[in-house]
Amino acid sequence: MRNFSNDLSALALNTATLGHNLDGHGAKWPVERVIDACAERGLGGIVFWRREIGDRAAEIGDRVRAAGMRVEGLCRTPYLVGSQAPAAVVDAAQQAIDMAADLGAPVLTIVTGGTEPGTKGVIETQKILAERVATLAPYAANRGVSLALEPLNPMFGGNRTCLMTVRDAVAVCERVGAPNVGIAVDVYHVWWDTTLAESLCAAGPERILGYHLCDWLEDTSDMLLDRGMMGDGVADLRAIRTAVEAAGYRGPCEVEIFSAADWWRRDPNEVLDAIVERFRTVC
Amino acid sequence: MRNFSNDLSALALNTATLGHNLDGHGAKWPVERVIDACAERGLGGIVFWRREIGDRAAEIGDRVRAAGMRVEGLCRTPYLVGSQAPAAVVDAAQQAIDMAADLGAPVLTIVTGGTEPGTKGVIETQKILAERVATLAPYAANRGVSLALEPLNPMFGGNRTCLMTVRDAVAVCERVGAPNVGIAVDVYHVWWDTTLAESLCAAGPERILGYHLCDWLEDTSDMLLDRGMMGDGVADLRAIRTAVEAAGYRGPCEVEIFSAADWWRRDPNEVLDAIVERFRTVC
Repeated sequence: MRNFSNDLSALALNTATLGHNLDGHGAKWPVERVIDACAERGLGGIVFWRREIGDRAAEIGDRVRAAGMRVEGLCRTPYLVGSQAPAAVVDAAQQAIDMAADLGAPVLTIVTGGTEPGTKGVIETQKILAERVATLAPYAANRGVSLALEPLNPMFGGNRTCLMTVRDAVAVCERVGAPNVGIAVDVYHVWWDTTLAESLCAAGPERILGYHLCDWLEDTSDMLLDRGMMGDGVADLRAIRTAVEAAGYRGPCEVEIFSAADWWRRDPNEVLDAIVERFRTVC
Repeated sequence: MRNFSNDLSALALNTATLGHNLDGHGAKWPVERVIDACAERGLGGIVFWRREIGDRAAEIGDRVRAAGMRVEGLCRTPYLVGSQAPAAVVDAAQQAIDMAADLGAPVLTIVTGGTEPGTKGVIETQKILAERVATLAPYAANRGVSLALEPLNPMFGGNRTCLMTVRDAVAVCERVGAPNVGIAVDVYHVWWDTTLAESLCAAGPERILGYHLCDWLEDTSDMLLDRGMMGDGVADLRAIRTAVEAAGYRGPCEVEIFSAADWWRRDPNEVLDAIVERFRTVC
Protein backbone atom coordinates (compact mmCIF):
# COMPACT_ATOMS: atom_id res chain seq x y z
CA MET A 1 0.00 0.00 0.00
CA ARG A 2 1.42 3.35 -0.99
CA ASN A 3 1.61 6.35 1.24
CA PHE A 4 -0.35 8.76 -0.91
CA SER A 5 0.42 11.87 1.03
CA ASN A 6 3.83 12.70 -0.38
CA ASP A 7 5.06 9.75 -2.38
CA LEU A 8 5.56 10.84 -5.96
CA SER A 9 5.45 7.23 -7.09
CA ALA A 10 1.67 7.58 -6.74
CA LEU A 11 1.67 10.56 -9.12
CA ALA A 12 1.01 10.05 -12.82
CA LEU A 13 0.92 12.53 -15.67
CA ASN A 14 -1.86 12.48 -18.21
CA THR A 15 -0.01 13.83 -21.21
CA ALA A 16 -2.89 16.10 -22.25
CA THR A 17 -1.89 18.28 -19.30
CA LEU A 18 1.17 19.53 -21.18
CA GLY A 19 -0.87 21.02 -24.00
CA HIS A 20 -1.50 17.93 -25.98
CA ASN A 21 -4.42 19.26 -27.99
CA LEU A 22 -3.34 22.86 -28.29
CA ASP A 23 -2.77 22.82 -32.02
CA GLY A 24 -5.24 20.09 -32.77
CA HIS A 25 -2.54 17.61 -33.70
CA GLY A 26 0.06 16.51 -31.22
CA ALA A 27 2.00 17.34 -28.11
CA LYS A 28 4.38 20.23 -27.61
CA TRP A 29 7.07 17.73 -26.76
CA PRO A 30 7.94 14.40 -28.36
CA VAL A 31 6.87 11.42 -26.27
CA GLU A 32 10.48 10.70 -25.33
CA ARG A 33 10.96 14.12 -23.81
CA VAL A 34 7.74 13.77 -21.80
CA ILE A 35 8.92 10.44 -20.43
CA ASP A 36 12.33 11.80 -19.47
CA ALA A 37 10.87 14.90 -17.81
CA CYS A 38 8.50 12.79 -15.71
CA ALA A 39 11.23 10.35 -14.74
CA GLU A 40 13.59 13.18 -13.75
CA ARG A 41 10.97 14.47 -11.32
CA GLY A 42 10.29 11.07 -9.80
CA LEU A 43 6.75 10.56 -11.09
CA GLY A 44 5.47 7.02 -10.92
CA GLY A 45 3.70 6.80 -14.23
CA ILE A 46 2.24 8.25 -17.39
CA VAL A 47 -1.12 8.02 -19.14
CA PHE A 48 -1.05 8.52 -22.89
CA TRP A 49 -3.56 9.37 -25.58
CA ARG A 50 -3.92 7.15 -28.61
CA ARG A 51 -2.88 9.83 -31.10
CA GLU A 52 0.56 9.96 -29.49
CA ILE A 53 1.20 6.26 -29.82
CA GLY A 54 0.68 5.46 -33.48
CA ASP A 55 2.38 2.15 -34.28
CA ARG A 56 5.01 2.57 -31.55
CA ALA A 57 3.03 1.17 -28.62
CA ALA A 58 5.50 -1.51 -27.51
CA GLU A 59 8.48 0.81 -27.99
CA ILE A 60 6.92 3.62 -25.97
CA GLY A 61 5.78 1.28 -23.22
CA ASP A 62 9.27 -0.17 -22.93
CA ARG A 63 10.79 3.27 -22.78
CA VAL A 64 8.52 4.25 -19.88
CA ARG A 65 9.44 1.11 -17.98
CA ALA A 66 13.14 1.56 -18.76
CA ALA A 67 12.84 5.00 -17.18
CA GLY A 68 11.59 3.37 -13.98
CA MET A 69 7.94 4.29 -14.40
CA ARG A 70 4.66 2.60 -15.26
CA VAL A 71 2.26 3.17 -18.12
CA GLU A 72 -0.81 3.64 -15.98
CA GLY A 73 -3.40 3.89 -18.72
CA LEU A 74 -4.48 4.88 -22.20
CA CYS A 75 -7.09 7.44 -23.26
CA ARG A 76 -9.47 6.28 -24.72
CA THR A 77 -11.96 4.23 -26.70
CA PRO A 78 -14.04 5.92 -29.36
CA TYR A 79 -17.54 6.78 -28.21
CA LEU A 80 -19.47 3.57 -27.74
CA VAL A 81 -22.95 5.12 -27.93
CA GLY A 82 -24.61 8.27 -29.20
CA SER A 83 -24.76 9.94 -32.57
CA GLN A 84 -20.96 10.32 -32.74
CA ALA A 85 -20.13 6.65 -32.13
CA PRO A 86 -18.36 5.10 -35.14
CA ALA A 87 -20.27 2.69 -37.33
CA ALA A 88 -17.97 -0.23 -36.57
CA VAL A 89 -17.87 0.62 -32.90
CA VAL A 90 -16.76 -2.78 -31.59
CA ASP A 91 -13.91 -3.03 -34.08
CA ALA A 92 -12.78 0.49 -33.27
CA ALA A 93 -12.86 -0.19 -29.55
CA GLN A 94 -10.95 -3.43 -29.99
CA GLN A 95 -8.21 -1.53 -31.79
CA ALA A 96 -7.93 0.74 -28.76
CA ILE A 97 -7.77 -2.31 -26.50
CA ASP A 98 -5.00 -3.74 -28.67
CA MET A 99 -3.05 -0.52 -28.39
CA ALA A 100 -3.41 -0.49 -24.60
CA ALA A 101 -2.19 -4.09 -24.46
CA ASP A 102 0.78 -3.40 -26.71
CA LEU A 103 1.65 -0.37 -24.62
CA GLY A 104 1.42 -2.39 -21.42
CA ALA A 105 -1.31 -0.11 -20.10
CA PRO A 106 -3.46 -1.92 -17.55
CA VAL A 107 -6.42 0.43 -18.00
CA LEU A 108 -8.22 1.82 -21.04
CA THR A 109 -10.58 4.70 -20.34
CA ILE A 110 -14.06 4.82 -21.83
CA VAL A 111 -15.82 8.13 -22.42
CA THR A 112 -19.15 6.74 -23.45
CA GLY A 113 -20.62 9.21 -25.91
CA GLY A 114 -24.06 10.75 -25.58
CA THR A 115 -27.71 9.88 -25.87
CA GLU A 116 -28.47 7.28 -28.53
CA PRO A 117 -30.38 8.59 -31.55
CA GLY A 118 -34.06 7.84 -31.25
CA THR A 119 -34.00 7.82 -27.46
CA LYS A 120 -34.42 10.42 -24.73
CA GLY A 121 -32.63 10.84 -21.43
CA VAL A 122 -29.84 8.45 -20.45
CA ILE A 123 -31.41 5.23 -19.18
CA GLU A 124 -31.92 3.56 -22.55
CA THR A 125 -28.46 4.61 -23.66
CA GLN A 126 -26.91 3.18 -20.51
CA LYS A 127 -28.48 -0.17 -21.35
CA ILE A 128 -27.04 -0.12 -24.86
CA LEU A 129 -23.68 0.93 -23.44
CA ALA A 130 -23.72 -2.01 -21.04
CA GLU A 131 -24.36 -4.41 -23.91
CA ARG A 132 -21.44 -3.03 -25.90
CA VAL A 133 -19.07 -3.02 -22.93
CA ALA A 134 -20.11 -6.61 -22.17
CA THR A 135 -19.12 -7.51 -25.73
CA LEU A 136 -15.73 -5.84 -25.32
CA ALA A 137 -14.88 -7.02 -21.81
CA PRO A 138 -13.76 -10.60 -22.66
CA TYR A 139 -11.64 -9.32 -25.53
CA ALA A 140 -9.99 -6.85 -23.18
CA ALA A 141 -9.53 -9.45 -20.46
CA ASN A 142 -7.83 -11.73 -22.95
CA ARG A 143 -5.34 -8.96 -23.62
CA GLY A 144 -4.84 -8.07 -19.95
CA VAL A 145 -6.65 -4.75 -20.16
CA SER A 146 -9.29 -3.37 -17.81
CA LEU A 147 -11.95 -0.94 -19.04
CA ALA A 148 -12.66 2.17 -16.96
CA LEU A 149 -16.02 3.85 -17.48
CA GLU A 150 -15.55 7.53 -16.70
CA PRO A 151 -18.60 9.50 -15.61
CA LEU A 152 -18.47 13.06 -16.87
CA ASN A 153 -19.87 16.24 -15.42
CA PRO A 154 -23.57 16.41 -16.38
CA MET A 155 -22.82 19.41 -18.59
CA PHE A 156 -21.40 16.85 -21.03
CA GLY A 157 -24.70 15.02 -21.28
CA GLY A 158 -26.32 14.91 -24.69
CA ASN A 159 -23.28 14.53 -26.92
CA ARG A 160 -20.39 13.21 -24.81
CA THR A 161 -21.65 10.99 -22.02
CA CYS A 162 -24.55 8.97 -20.68
CA LEU A 163 -22.83 8.51 -17.30
CA MET A 164 -23.13 11.58 -15.10
CA THR A 165 -22.15 10.21 -11.72
CA VAL A 166 -20.08 7.50 -10.11
CA ARG A 167 -23.40 5.91 -9.24
CA ASP A 168 -24.37 5.80 -12.93
CA ALA A 169 -21.05 4.26 -13.89
CA VAL A 170 -21.21 1.65 -11.13
CA ALA A 171 -24.73 0.72 -12.21
CA VAL A 172 -23.45 0.01 -15.71
CA CYS A 173 -20.53 -1.98 -14.29
CA GLU A 174 -22.97 -4.12 -12.35
CA ARG A 175 -25.09 -4.62 -15.42
CA VAL A 176 -22.00 -5.76 -17.34
CA GLY A 177 -20.77 -7.96 -14.52
CA ALA A 178 -17.23 -8.45 -15.83
CA PRO A 179 -14.28 -8.41 -13.41
CA ASN A 180 -12.20 -6.18 -15.70
CA VAL A 181 -14.79 -3.41 -16.04
CA GLY A 182 -14.70 -0.57 -13.53
CA ILE A 183 -14.76 3.21 -13.25
CA ALA A 184 -12.46 6.21 -13.41
CA VAL A 185 -13.07 9.02 -10.92
CA ASP A 186 -12.13 12.50 -12.13
CA VAL A 187 -12.25 15.47 -9.77
CA TYR A 188 -13.46 17.76 -12.56
CA HIS A 189 -16.47 15.56 -13.17
CA VAL A 190 -17.45 14.53 -9.64
CA TRP A 191 -16.36 17.33 -7.28
CA TRP A 192 -19.91 18.63 -6.88
CA ASP A 193 -21.53 15.28 -6.00
CA THR A 194 -22.61 15.20 -2.37
CA THR A 195 -23.25 11.45 -2.65
CA LEU A 196 -19.75 10.72 -3.94
CA ALA A 197 -18.36 9.05 -0.83
CA GLU A 198 -21.26 6.64 -0.53
CA SER A 199 -21.21 5.90 -4.25
CA LEU A 200 -17.51 5.10 -4.09
CA CYS A 201 -17.99 2.85 -1.09
CA ALA A 202 -20.75 1.04 -2.97
CA ALA A 203 -18.39 0.65 -5.91
CA GLY A 204 -15.73 -1.06 -3.84
CA PRO A 205 -11.99 -1.11 -4.46
CA GLU A 206 -12.06 -3.58 -7.35
CA ARG A 207 -14.25 -1.26 -9.38
CA ILE A 208 -12.16 1.90 -9.00
CA LEU A 209 -9.55 1.84 -11.74
CA GLY A 210 -8.41 5.43 -11.81
CA TYR A 211 -8.38 8.71 -9.91
CA HIS A 212 -7.86 11.91 -11.91
CA LEU A 213 -6.71 15.16 -10.38
CA CYS A 214 -7.28 18.77 -11.38
CA ASP A 215 -9.47 21.48 -9.88
CA TRP A 216 -12.77 23.20 -10.66
CA LEU A 217 -12.19 26.93 -11.03
CA GLU A 218 -14.78 29.13 -9.34
CA ASP A 219 -15.33 30.90 -12.66
CA THR A 220 -14.94 28.25 -15.33
CA SER A 221 -14.77 30.11 -18.63
CA ASP A 222 -14.76 27.09 -20.95
CA MET A 223 -16.40 23.87 -19.90
CA LEU A 224 -14.04 21.65 -21.88
CA LEU A 225 -10.73 23.48 -21.75
CA ASP A 226 -10.61 25.55 -18.56
CA ARG A 227 -9.70 23.06 -15.88
CA GLY A 228 -7.73 24.35 -12.95
CA MET A 229 -4.45 23.25 -11.38
CA MET A 230 -4.94 21.54 -8.04
CA GLY A 231 -5.43 24.17 -5.35
CA ASP A 232 -6.59 26.94 -7.67
CA GLY A 233 -10.29 26.02 -7.57
CA VAL A 234 -13.14 25.12 -5.27
CA ALA A 235 -13.03 21.32 -5.36
CA ASP A 236 -12.44 19.81 -1.94
CA LEU A 237 -9.47 17.74 -3.05
CA ARG A 238 -8.69 16.33 0.37
CA ALA A 239 -12.26 15.22 0.95
CA ILE A 240 -12.44 13.56 -2.46
CA ARG A 241 -9.15 11.77 -1.96
CA THR A 242 -10.26 10.65 1.48
CA ALA A 243 -13.43 9.24 -0.10
CA VAL A 244 -11.49 7.47 -2.84
CA GLU A 245 -9.08 5.96 -0.32
CA ALA A 246 -11.86 5.03 2.08
CA ALA A 247 -13.36 3.04 -0.78
CA GLY A 248 -10.11 1.12 -0.98
CA TYR A 249 -8.46 2.68 -4.01
CA ARG A 250 -4.68 2.32 -4.00
CA GLY A 251 -3.87 3.17 -7.60
CA PRO A 252 -2.23 6.22 -9.12
CA CYS A 253 -3.29 9.86 -8.86
CA GLU A 254 -3.34 11.00 -12.47
CA VAL A 255 -3.16 14.70 -13.20
CA GLU A 256 -5.29 15.59 -16.22
CA ILE A 257 -5.70 19.31 -16.89
CA PHE A 258 -7.16 20.70 -20.10
CA SER A 259 -6.33 24.39 -19.89
CA ALA A 260 -6.14 26.09 -23.27
CA ALA A 261 -5.84 29.63 -21.94
CA ASP A 262 -3.46 29.06 -19.05
CA TRP A 263 -1.42 25.92 -18.40
CA TRP A 264 -1.25 24.84 -22.02
CA ARG A 265 0.41 28.18 -22.82
CA ARG A 266 3.21 27.57 -20.34
CA ASP A 267 6.48 25.71 -20.67
CA PRO A 268 5.85 22.02 -19.93
CA ASN A 269 8.68 22.11 -17.40
CA GLU A 270 6.82 24.76 -15.43
CA VAL A 271 3.63 22.71 -15.60
CA LEU A 272 5.38 19.58 -14.35
CA ASP A 273 7.03 21.48 -11.50
CA ALA A 274 3.67 22.93 -10.49
CA ILE A 275 2.07 19.48 -10.55
CA VAL A 276 4.73 18.06 -8.26
CA GLU A 277 4.51 20.98 -5.85
CA ARG A 278 0.70 20.97 -5.73
CA PHE A 279 0.55 17.21 -5.36
CA ARG A 280 2.76 17.50 -2.29
CA THR A 281 0.84 20.37 -0.74
CA VAL A 282 -2.87 20.36 -1.60
CA CYS A 283 -3.86 16.90 -2.84
CA MET B 1 -56.49 18.58 -9.67
CA ARG B 2 -55.68 19.82 -13.14
CA ASN B 3 -55.46 17.66 -16.18
CA PHE B 4 -51.90 18.46 -17.16
CA SER B 5 -51.92 16.74 -20.49
CA ASN B 6 -53.59 19.42 -22.56
CA ASP B 7 -54.94 22.05 -20.21
CA LEU B 8 -53.25 25.36 -20.98
CA SER B 9 -54.29 26.69 -17.59
CA ALA B 10 -51.34 24.65 -16.29
CA LEU B 11 -48.96 26.46 -18.63
CA ALA B 12 -47.03 29.49 -17.45
CA LEU B 13 -44.57 31.72 -19.26
CA ASN B 14 -41.32 32.72 -17.68
CA THR B 15 -40.82 36.08 -19.33
CA ALA B 16 -37.11 35.48 -19.96
CA THR B 17 -38.21 33.08 -22.69
CA LEU B 18 -39.21 35.98 -24.93
CA GLY B 19 -35.71 37.44 -25.01
CA HIS B 20 -35.75 39.22 -21.75
CA ASN B 21 -32.00 39.58 -21.43
CA LEU B 22 -31.15 40.01 -25.08
CA ASP B 23 -29.94 43.57 -24.82
CA GLY B 24 -28.92 43.36 -21.21
CA HIS B 25 -31.72 45.65 -20.04
CA GLY B 26 -35.31 44.71 -20.54
CA ALA B 27 -37.80 42.73 -22.50
CA LYS B 28 -38.55 43.07 -26.19
CA TRP B 29 -42.13 43.80 -25.29
CA PRO B 30 -43.59 45.95 -22.53
CA VAL B 31 -45.00 43.91 -19.66
CA GLU B 32 -48.55 44.76 -20.72
CA ARG B 33 -48.07 43.27 -24.16
CA VAL B 34 -46.61 40.08 -22.67
CA ILE B 35 -49.62 39.75 -20.38
CA ASP B 36 -52.09 40.26 -23.22
CA ALA B 37 -50.31 37.83 -25.52
CA CYS B 38 -50.33 35.12 -22.84
CA ALA B 39 -53.97 35.72 -22.00
CA GLU B 40 -54.99 35.60 -25.67
CA ARG B 41 -53.45 32.15 -25.95
CA GLY B 42 -55.10 30.85 -22.81
CA LEU B 43 -52.02 30.46 -20.64
CA GLY B 44 -52.66 30.10 -16.94
CA GLY B 45 -49.93 32.28 -15.58
CA ILE B 46 -46.75 34.29 -15.84
CA VAL B 47 -43.47 34.37 -13.94
CA PHE B 48 -41.63 37.67 -13.96
CA TRP B 49 -38.11 38.84 -13.29
CA ARG B 50 -37.49 41.60 -10.78
CA ARG B 51 -35.99 43.99 -13.31
CA GLU B 52 -39.32 44.10 -15.17
CA ILE B 53 -41.32 45.05 -12.12
CA GLY B 54 -39.65 48.17 -10.74
CA ASP B 55 -42.10 49.98 -8.46
CA ARG B 56 -45.16 48.70 -10.34
CA ALA B 57 -45.55 45.36 -8.56
CA ALA B 58 -49.15 45.74 -7.41
CA GLU B 59 -50.22 47.26 -10.72
CA ILE B 60 -48.64 44.47 -12.78
CA GLY B 61 -50.02 41.78 -10.51
CA ASP B 62 -53.50 43.23 -10.79
CA ARG B 63 -53.21 43.42 -14.55
CA VAL B 64 -52.30 39.71 -14.77
CA ARG B 65 -55.26 38.78 -12.62
CA ALA B 66 -57.60 41.08 -14.53
CA ALA B 67 -56.55 39.18 -17.66
CA GLY B 68 -57.71 35.95 -16.03
CA MET B 69 -54.28 34.61 -15.20
CA ARG B 70 -52.11 34.08 -12.15
CA VAL B 71 -48.72 35.49 -11.25
CA GLU B 72 -47.07 32.15 -10.57
CA GLY B 73 -43.74 33.39 -9.31
CA LEU B 74 -40.91 35.90 -9.30
CA CYS B 75 -37.27 35.41 -10.28
CA ARG B 76 -35.28 35.73 -8.01
CA THR B 77 -33.40 36.61 -4.85
CA PRO B 78 -29.84 37.88 -5.11
CA TYR B 79 -27.25 35.19 -4.47
CA LEU B 80 -27.39 34.24 -0.81
CA VAL B 81 -23.92 32.70 -0.63
CA GLY B 82 -20.65 32.75 -2.54
CA SER B 83 -18.29 35.50 -3.55
CA GLN B 84 -20.99 37.33 -5.55
CA ALA B 85 -23.56 37.54 -2.74
CA PRO B 86 -24.29 41.16 -1.79
CA ALA B 87 -22.90 42.51 1.46
CA ALA B 88 -26.34 43.17 2.95
CA VAL B 89 -27.66 39.86 1.71
CA VAL B 90 -30.62 39.54 4.09
CA ASP B 91 -31.84 43.06 3.35
CA ALA B 92 -31.51 42.48 -0.38
CA ALA B 93 -33.39 39.20 -0.20
CA GLN B 94 -36.14 40.79 1.90
CA GLN B 95 -36.62 43.41 -0.78
CA ALA B 96 -37.15 40.61 -3.30
CA ILE B 97 -39.65 38.99 -0.93
CA ASP B 98 -41.48 42.31 -0.63
CA MET B 99 -41.69 42.60 -4.40
CA ALA B 100 -43.08 39.07 -4.71
CA ALA B 101 -45.69 39.86 -2.08
CA ASP B 102 -46.68 43.14 -3.73
CA LEU B 103 -46.95 41.35 -7.06
CA GLY B 104 -49.08 38.61 -5.54
CA ALA B 105 -46.53 35.97 -6.52
CA PRO B 106 -46.80 32.93 -4.25
CA VAL B 107 -43.24 31.76 -4.97
CA LEU B 108 -39.88 33.52 -5.06
CA THR B 109 -37.07 31.53 -6.65
CA ILE B 110 -33.66 31.28 -5.04
CA VAL B 111 -30.55 30.68 -7.12
CA THR B 112 -28.13 30.25 -4.30
CA GLY B 113 -24.78 31.50 -5.55
CA GLY B 114 -21.58 29.50 -5.41
CA THR B 115 -19.01 28.24 -2.97
CA GLU B 116 -18.40 30.52 -0.02
CA PRO B 117 -15.00 32.23 0.03
CA GLY B 118 -12.61 30.39 2.29
CA THR B 119 -14.33 27.05 1.84
CA LYS B 120 -14.05 24.16 -0.60
CA GLY B 121 -16.72 21.99 -2.17
CA VAL B 122 -20.39 22.61 -1.42
CA ILE B 123 -21.17 21.12 1.99
CA GLU B 124 -20.04 24.07 4.11
CA THR B 125 -21.76 26.49 1.76
CA GLN B 126 -25.01 24.53 1.98
CA LYS B 127 -24.91 24.93 5.76
CA ILE B 128 -24.44 28.68 5.47
CA LEU B 129 -27.21 28.81 2.88
CA ALA B 130 -29.56 26.96 5.23
CA GLU B 131 -28.86 29.48 7.98
CA ARG B 132 -29.63 32.41 5.70
CA VAL B 133 -32.78 30.84 4.29
CA ALA B 134 -33.91 30.08 7.84
CA THR B 135 -33.50 33.77 8.63
CA LEU B 136 -35.57 34.76 5.59
CA ALA B 137 -38.32 32.13 5.85
CA PRO B 138 -40.41 33.76 8.63
CA TYR B 139 -40.20 37.12 6.90
CA ALA B 140 -41.43 35.52 3.68
CA ALA B 141 -44.17 33.59 5.47
CA ASN B 142 -45.39 36.79 7.04
CA ARG B 143 -45.78 38.21 3.56
CA GLY B 144 -47.41 35.10 2.11
CA VAL B 145 -44.43 34.12 -0.02
CA SER B 146 -42.80 30.69 -0.37
CA LEU B 147 -39.11 30.36 -1.18
CA ALA B 148 -38.09 27.86 -3.88
CA LEU B 149 -34.49 26.64 -3.82
CA GLU B 150 -33.55 25.79 -7.39
CA PRO B 151 -30.80 23.23 -7.91
CA LEU B 152 -28.72 24.05 -10.98
CA ASN B 153 -26.89 21.80 -13.36
CA PRO B 154 -23.51 20.97 -11.76
CA MET B 155 -21.75 22.96 -14.48
CA PHE B 156 -22.92 26.03 -12.56
CA GLY B 157 -21.08 24.97 -9.44
CA GLY B 158 -18.35 27.29 -8.22
CA ASN B 159 -19.90 30.65 -8.96
CA ARG B 160 -23.67 30.21 -9.33
CA THR B 161 -24.92 27.42 -7.12
CA CYS B 162 -24.16 25.14 -4.20
CA LEU B 163 -27.20 22.96 -4.96
CA MET B 164 -26.58 20.54 -7.82
CA THR B 165 -29.46 18.13 -7.44
CA VAL B 166 -32.98 17.89 -6.14
CA ARG B 167 -31.50 15.81 -3.36
CA ASP B 168 -29.16 18.66 -2.39
CA ALA B 169 -32.00 21.16 -2.39
CA VAL B 170 -34.27 18.91 -0.32
CA ALA B 171 -31.47 18.39 2.19
CA VAL B 172 -31.23 22.16 2.68
CA CYS B 173 -35.03 22.40 2.97
CA GLU B 174 -34.96 19.81 5.72
CA ARG B 175 -32.16 21.65 7.47
CA VAL B 176 -34.21 24.87 7.35
CA GLY B 177 -37.39 23.12 8.42
CA ALA B 178 -39.80 25.92 7.46
CA PRO B 179 -43.14 25.10 5.82
CA ASN B 180 -42.75 27.82 3.19
CA VAL B 181 -39.34 26.67 1.91
CA GLY B 182 -39.25 24.19 -0.96
CA ILE B 183 -37.64 23.52 -4.30
CA ALA B 184 -38.01 24.38 -7.98
CA VAL B 185 -37.39 21.61 -10.51
CA ASP B 186 -36.02 22.74 -13.87
CA VAL B 187 -35.66 20.28 -16.73
CA TYR B 188 -32.45 21.96 -17.89
CA HIS B 189 -30.83 21.39 -14.54
CA VAL B 190 -32.09 17.92 -13.60
CA TRP B 191 -32.74 16.02 -16.84
CA TRP B 192 -29.56 13.94 -16.47
CA ASP B 193 -30.21 12.79 -12.89
CA THR B 194 -31.02 9.08 -12.76
CA THR B 195 -32.07 9.44 -9.13
CA LEU B 196 -34.53 12.24 -9.88
CA ALA B 197 -37.74 10.28 -9.37
CA GLU B 198 -36.70 8.95 -5.99
CA SER B 199 -35.41 12.36 -4.90
CA LEU B 200 -38.73 13.96 -5.87
CA CYS B 201 -40.68 11.31 -4.01
CA ALA B 202 -38.51 11.92 -0.96
CA ALA B 203 -39.22 15.64 -1.31
CA GLY B 204 -42.97 15.17 -1.23
CA PRO B 205 -45.63 17.40 -2.76
CA GLU B 206 -45.40 20.19 -0.18
CA ARG B 207 -41.76 20.79 -1.03
CA ILE B 208 -42.14 21.05 -4.81
CA LEU B 209 -42.97 24.66 -5.57
CA GLY B 210 -42.23 24.85 -9.28
CA TYR B 211 -41.62 22.85 -12.43
CA HIS B 212 -39.72 24.52 -15.27
CA LEU B 213 -39.83 23.34 -18.85
CA CYS B 214 -37.32 23.59 -21.67
CA ASP B 215 -35.07 20.99 -23.28
CA TRP B 216 -31.40 20.03 -23.25
CA LEU B 217 -30.01 20.21 -26.77
CA GLU B 218 -27.75 17.33 -27.77
CA ASP B 219 -25.07 19.85 -28.70
CA THR B 220 -25.37 22.67 -26.21
CA SER B 221 -23.23 25.49 -27.56
CA ASP B 222 -23.55 27.86 -24.60
CA MET B 223 -24.19 26.51 -21.13
CA LEU B 224 -26.12 29.57 -19.97
CA LEU B 225 -27.94 30.75 -23.08
CA ASP B 226 -28.52 27.76 -25.36
CA ARG B 227 -31.53 26.05 -23.87
CA GLY B 228 -33.78 24.20 -26.24
CA MET B 229 -37.51 24.39 -26.92
CA MET B 230 -39.38 21.38 -25.56
CA GLY B 231 -39.02 18.50 -28.01
CA ASP B 232 -35.84 19.74 -29.67
CA GLY B 233 -33.44 18.08 -27.24
CA VAL B 234 -32.63 14.85 -25.44
CA ALA B 235 -34.38 15.39 -22.10
CA ASP B 236 -37.04 12.79 -21.42
CA LEU B 237 -39.77 15.32 -20.77
CA ARG B 238 -42.52 12.79 -20.27
CA ALA B 239 -40.50 10.78 -17.77
CA ILE B 240 -39.60 13.90 -15.82
CA ARG B 241 -43.17 15.12 -15.74
CA THR B 242 -44.33 11.70 -14.67
CA ALA B 243 -41.82 11.81 -11.83
CA VAL B 244 -42.89 15.31 -10.79
CA GLU B 245 -46.56 14.30 -10.82
CA ALA B 246 -45.87 11.01 -9.04
CA ALA B 247 -44.33 13.09 -6.27
CA GLY B 248 -47.62 14.93 -5.98
CA TYR B 249 -46.88 18.20 -7.75
CA ARG B 250 -49.98 19.93 -9.11
CA GLY B 251 -48.61 23.40 -9.78
CA PRO B 252 -47.85 25.16 -13.04
CA CYS B 253 -45.54 24.07 -15.84
CA GLU B 254 -43.38 27.14 -16.38
CA VAL B 255 -41.55 27.48 -19.68
CA GLU B 256 -38.15 29.11 -19.16
CA ILE B 257 -35.87 29.13 -22.20
CA PHE B 258 -32.68 31.18 -22.40
CA SER B 259 -31.77 30.98 -26.06
CA ALA B 260 -29.68 33.90 -27.25
CA ALA B 261 -28.90 32.48 -30.69
CA ASP B 262 -32.30 31.04 -31.58
CA TRP B 263 -35.58 31.71 -29.78
CA TRP B 264 -34.56 35.10 -28.47
CA ARG B 265 -34.02 36.21 -32.06
CA ARG B 266 -37.56 35.31 -33.07
CA ASP B 267 -40.77 37.26 -32.85
CA PRO B 268 -42.27 36.72 -29.37
CA ASN B 269 -45.55 35.73 -31.02
CA GLU B 270 -43.79 32.87 -32.77
CA VAL B 271 -42.15 31.81 -29.53
CA LEU B 272 -45.47 31.81 -27.66
CA ASP B 273 -47.17 29.83 -30.42
CA ALA B 274 -44.36 27.27 -30.33
CA ILE B 275 -44.63 26.96 -26.56
CA VAL B 276 -48.35 26.27 -26.75
CA GLU B 277 -47.93 23.71 -29.53
CA ARG B 278 -45.05 21.91 -27.84
CA PHE B 279 -46.77 21.91 -24.48
CA ARG B 280 -49.72 20.15 -26.07
CA THR B 281 -47.64 17.60 -27.98
CA VAL B 282 -44.38 16.72 -26.20
CA CYS B 283 -44.60 17.73 -22.54
